[in-house]
Amino acid sequence: MNKPLLSSTIEMPEFFANYPAIWQPLKSGIRLHAVQKGEVVFVHGDAAQALWLVQKGWMKLVRQTPDGKETVVSICTEGDIFGEAALFAHANYPYMAESLDDMTELYSIPADMLRKVLQQNSEFSSSIMAMLNARIAQTQLKLEHMSTLSSAQRLGCFLLRLCKTQANGSKILQIPVEKNVLAAYLGMKPETLSRSIQQMKEIGISVQGPKVEITSIPKLRDFVCNSCSEFGNCDTEAID
Amino acid sequence: MNKPLLSSTIEMPEFFANYPAIWQPLKSGIRLHAVQKGEVVFVHGDAAQALWLVQKGWMKLVRQTPDGKETVVSICTEGDIFGEAALFAHANYPYMAESLDDMTELYSIPADMLRKVLQQNSEFSSSIMAMLNARIAQTQLKLEHMSTLSSAQRLGCFLLRLCKTQANGSKILQIPVEKNVLAAYLGMKPETLSRSIQQMKEIGISVQGPKVEITSIPKLRDFVCNSCSEFGNCDTEAID
Repeated sequence: MNKPLLSSTIEMPEFFANYPAIWQPLKSGIRLHAVQKGEVVFVHGDAAQALWLVQKGWMKLVRQTPDGKETVVSICTEGDIFGEAALFAHANYPYMAESLDDMTELYSIPADMLRKVLQQNSEFSSSIMAMLNARIAQTQLKLEHMSTLSSAQRLGCFLLRLCKTQANGSKILQIPVEKNVLAAYLGMKPETLSRSIQQMKEIGISVQGPKVEITSIPKLRDFVCNSCSEFGNCDTEAID
Repeated sequence: MNKPLLSSTIEMPEFFANYPAIWQPLKSGIRLHAVQKGEVVFVHGDAAQALWLVQKGWMKLVRQTPDGKETVVSICTEGDIFGEAALFAHANYPYMAESLDDMTELYSIPADMLRKVLQQNSEFSSSIMAMLNARIAQTQLKLEHMSTLSSAQRLGCFLLRLCKTQANGSKILQIPVEKNVLAAYLGMKPETLSRSIQQMKEIGISVQGPKVEITSIPKLRDFVCNSCSEFGNCDTEAID
């Protein structure tokens, strides 16, 4: 990844709005990259030289098993962070990162700079710890969902997360993620994903190519969240 | 949990061997507790007033969904840590913690003391971040295993983790965890767990009550790890 897009005129990414004191020492090192669909940012096992922040577009994080299965660790979009291994000295990326979209823009934050700021600023290191803790909670919840939610509910939870803090009304999402990738991420077969999409018509959700139309967010939440132990306490739960 | 066992004569838990500079400021606050089977240390939603370290015995960490399903987030034993929410101000425990064993001993580390030391010691906060990162990797791997490993392989991976760094020879484990709890933790039905146990006889593993006998650790690893993306890189992988 040696293609800085706008290296000299980077504006502060929204992520840093809460950490103005951090932005200052980091900004000279942060780069903005444009990535095409299918482009690989790093592979599994590369030295973790940067932390990445998705400004725009979609990325998949993927691992492979020795017997050839591909597992999708994460699908990242606007505001998501990946490559946290960069927080630690001598660490390697535990997955491959590939763009799913021609319009993907990523910020890279150099690992050495980041670790230096972390050492000097205990407030920032608390924030990073809170972020890591939230990641643990999210992953544990996804694991729980494998046992407690139906396939259609797991898809519904994925859509709710993309609605972010919007709690009412309708929403149109653009999700340029191939069906087999999304199915792998949600821990189901592509045909199960197709059946789940069919099933969700009943609660007013329609899918046409990358476009997903949700007619009622509260209806979707009723469908998903009653079966989830985070009910009332989740980061997709917004204030009405 | 107001039953310190040996509050005045606590020896340094092994966990702190790598952090002697941390043990000193914490030791006056650390308590050792004896917990009986079925005893609840804290419930889901309690203010996170301490970080917990299992010295001996077994604990389960459990959540409940609004529609009444119990999900087992973790089964902890000797050397495991739980209640990381205590690292963060105003946080609540995201699960209930209950002892599975009459012989469980736990250290509690007061949250306020811990956070103070974290703020003052950037080396310790790096270590905590590394611990959180390892927890993320472990949870992500468990999630991956739900799609890529068979039920018997998932059970095998659980057993391998209990063998820790032992890479060769045989091993006898005592696992006083009820079958339905272990099944829930491994994301399978109790009858599937029973079938998996039967299946593992072929690779020399026998189960009698809480006693599990593994005749060949390398054979068990062949059975499990060839299907795992962490192959050769996992914390159960030991140096031969």
